[in-house]
Amino acid sequence: MTDIVAQLIDALGDAVSTDAAQLDAARADKSGHRSGSAPLAVVNARSIEDIQATMRIATATHTPVVTRGAGTGLAGGAIAASGEIVLSTLAMDRVLEINESDLLAVVEPGILNGRFNEILGEQGLWFAPDPASKAISTVGGNIATNAGGLLCAKYGVTRDAVLGLKVVLPDGRLLTLGHRSVKGVTGLDLTALMVGSEGLLGVIVEATVRIRREVPGTLATIASFYPGVRDAAAASAAITAAGLQPAVMELIDPSVLRAIDAFAGSSLAGRGNAHLAVQFDGPGAAEDAHRALEIITELGGDADLTTDRDEAEKLLAIRRAAHPSLAALGTTLIEDVSVPRTALPDMFDAIAAIEQKFGITIPTLAHAGDGNLHPNFIFDGPIVPDQVWAAADELFLAALKLGGTLTGEHGIGILKKRWLGDELGEDQLELQRQIKQVFDPLGILNPGKVF
Amino acid sequence: MTDIVAQLIDALGDAVSTDAAQLDAARADKSGHRSGSAPLAVVNARSIEDIQATMRIATATHTPVVTRGAGTGLAGGAIAASGEIVLSTLAMDRVLEINESDLLAVVEPGILNGRFNEILGEQGLWFAPDPASKAISTVGGNIATNAGGLLCAKYGVTRDAVLGLKVVLPDGRLLTLGHRSVKGVTGLDLTALMVGSEGLLGVIVEATVRIRREVPGTLATIASFYPGVRDAAAASAAITAAGLQPAVMELIDPSVLRAIDAFAGSSLAGRGNAHLAVQFDGPGAAEDAHRALEIITELGGDADLTTDRDEAEKLLAIRRAAHPSLAALGTTLIEDVSVPRTALPDMFDAIAAIEQKFGITIPTLAHAGDGNLHPNFIFDGPIVPDQVWAAADELFLAALKLGGTLTGEHGIGILKKRWLGDELGEDQLELQRQIKQVFDPLGILNPGKVF
Repeated sequence: MTDIVAQLIDALGDAVSTDAAQLDAARADKSGHRSGSAPLAVVNARSIEDIQATMRIATATHTPVVTRGAGTGLAGGAIAASGEIVLSTLAMDRVLEINESDLLAVVEPGILNGRFNEILGEQGLWFAPDPASKAISTVGGNIATNAGGLLCAKYGVTRDAVLGLKVVLPDGRLLTLGHRSVKGVTGLDLTALMVGSEGLLGVIVEATVRIRREVPGTLATIASFYPGVRDAAAASAAITAAGLQPAVMELIDPSVLRAIDAFAGSSLAGRGNAHLAVQFDGPGAAEDAHRALEIITELGGDADLTTDRDEAEKLLAIRRAAHPSLAALGTTLIEDVSVPRTALPDMFDAIAAIEQKFGITIPTLAHAGDGNLHPNFIFDGPIVPDQVWAAADELFLAALKLGGTLTGEHGIGILKKRWLGDELGEDQLELQRQIKQVFDPLGILNPGKVF
Repeated sequence: MTDIVAQLIDALGDAVSTDAAQLDAARADKSGHRSGSAPLAVVNARSIEDIQATMRIATATHTPVVTRGAGTGLAGGAIAASGEIVLSTLAMDRVLEINESDLLAVVEPGILNGRFNEILGEQGLWFAPDPASKAISTVGGNIATNAGGLLCAKYGVTRDAVLGLKVVLPDGRLLTLGHRSVKGVTGLDLTALMVGSEGLLGVIVEATVRIRREVPGTLATIASFYPGVRDAAAASAAITAAGLQPAVMELIDPSVLRAIDAFAGSSLAGRGNAHLAVQFDGPGAAEDAHRALEIITELGGDADLTTDRDEAEKLLAIRRAAHPSLAALGTTLIEDVSVPRTALPDMFDAIAAIEQKFGITIPTLAHAGDGNLHPNFIFDGPIVPDQVWAAADELFLAALKLGGTLTGEHGIGILKKRWLGDELGEDQLELQRQIKQVFDPLGILNPGKVF
């Protein structure tokens, strides 16, 4: 072990840290999960060459490597333990190119999504992948987990925004995948395969991504309140059934709303038990929002509409306060099931039944526009209680039964490994394991994660 | 051989054809290429079970299988030869579900893209992948080649529209990949890997695809004429540089324009040497088109603008007439390079230099909005002359040098195999071969194609 660290220091100098605080930080992410022991060392890579050098040493010594961005993952995918090298891309945070005419940018993996968007914003451009963590999560991490967010129904998932990648293989070889053109079908689509691969296949060291021009026109935002969560879900369903395409449609259930009130000192629950925020952009935004407002009002919702951007920010701030508000109540296990949009009310029923069966409350948020729900389990201490896992198990199976998936945007990591076979089936799981082996024959990349 | 056919007939009855005309048809596609000999048999599959039965026999007897939709491919990817079973999905042409609320549909692979869109259109819906062959090509074939088309810059490539697939492996096992939800990140993205895999990994037997609501608002279409192809390319660049996002932007060079005149009896070349069609949709269409018209006029273009749908169809019919017009001149080899949009003028220069060097004319069309060019080589007889391959070689290398790709939307098939390594590099090529082997250890799926 000391020999491995010595080799790393010899090759990489002060990019290698064995500082106790850094090693300790790499044992956890934002999932509430924490590994049982500290990793060997953290390599704070400054360049592709640093990453290649690290991987060559890892391969030569058969040492596991956990690639890590900002550590904001919610599935334990970037958690490292004893005997592992942590390969941090956080210091590789440059924007290498912004090409407005081709609407593409080339970035290093460690740049924060929010920072990247600030830089693009100066030129009237933006990057559509929009996870709720965007202020603190890296573009490389967003790609490694195929991060979702608030805008996916209208603007696609992260995979749709990735044109090409540079990837370092376990033995240190550098691959260039994809292209700079909008189209390209040469060979198998390894770029798409890398997106969402959670550090299992290679290290993403550079990304060529699609960017967009700022959407012209008004931004029209509705905040609406309802007697119950089913009413809010019904309003959301009615809005899409009317042929409207909001950019954002976020649902908050009663217990999350109360948690926000307790955390932020607000009195939202005085206006209703459930909340739905709906935002339209583009040239038809104001007109669409007025139609949505009529639908909401007819269905008994109590709603405000604004076309002022600052006012809109205030309305969406309610949604943004949800995670910190829940975290203040205890350790949170944030689940991430996704179902077809029309199955949302059924999924809420399933959650209510699970709450009743287990005698617990499961505060739930939903990206209602795309059917992605975040049911939260809250408990004391660092260990997920067995009862929570039992309830989560029923939750996952309910989502699969509704044509959905275990995880819409957080990934499998270590938290959902045991349900992977339920969704994929044994045949597919075996194929996936074999593909992993093609890229990583020694099994040194993020071992114990996903599979 | 006869034994294999007997086994197929025994298992599949009259789904198996050894009719000389059917066997002969399977030797060619729309690439102008033709195999040297007839295949063993054509299985006209009626169901997933038929496909599984075929694959089980193929595996047991180590017989190669070429999956084929409508045979409209332009790279020879579905051409079959002696000793091979042709597995036709053309009879599996049902739409199994249209779910307007979840904006998804489930289809069998053999349905024609155009027919699917007719059915969707009755409900005010549509399927965005829009290859020029849509009237005659299947959705399964579109997925197997990740087909592009006219609308990709605005509405994405086929991959972006595929949520889930059912796939039969070479040994007959049925896999269910992906999901019905907008989001889903469980395990490696094998759905995306299947899209564009040209029949190498499995047989696509069912697809769950994203559909869209018809775009509301006006359709505003411009047909414009220019002194030369560089002027048309400059107009197209200026339109996107102004921040406008046309749904369609199609460029026609002088020799294609003359071929259309000769074929259709029109006199387009009287108005200019090069043609650019630009179409805007959505609520801001008319306003955007007026801005585009100003740009075109300033740059010396001679243009008509219409917001009448029938009139627009007539304007776009010019573009649609291009392929038959060229085909009337001789055997056409349609190339398919793609470059970043801003590299279009450089690519036209490269084509002009190649024309001069080889003393040939290379009539060229371009999806100018996304940088995808179709240079056409025209010659007599069925064999591509060496000189044409030599010119194509220079064309491909020029596209790669400009950050582009060998093929934007047609695929590698047999026609571009020899350049695959130039684009992918040896390391990536080897990984791709190994992934192929994971899916198809006996190498019976579409052997000799792509790799």
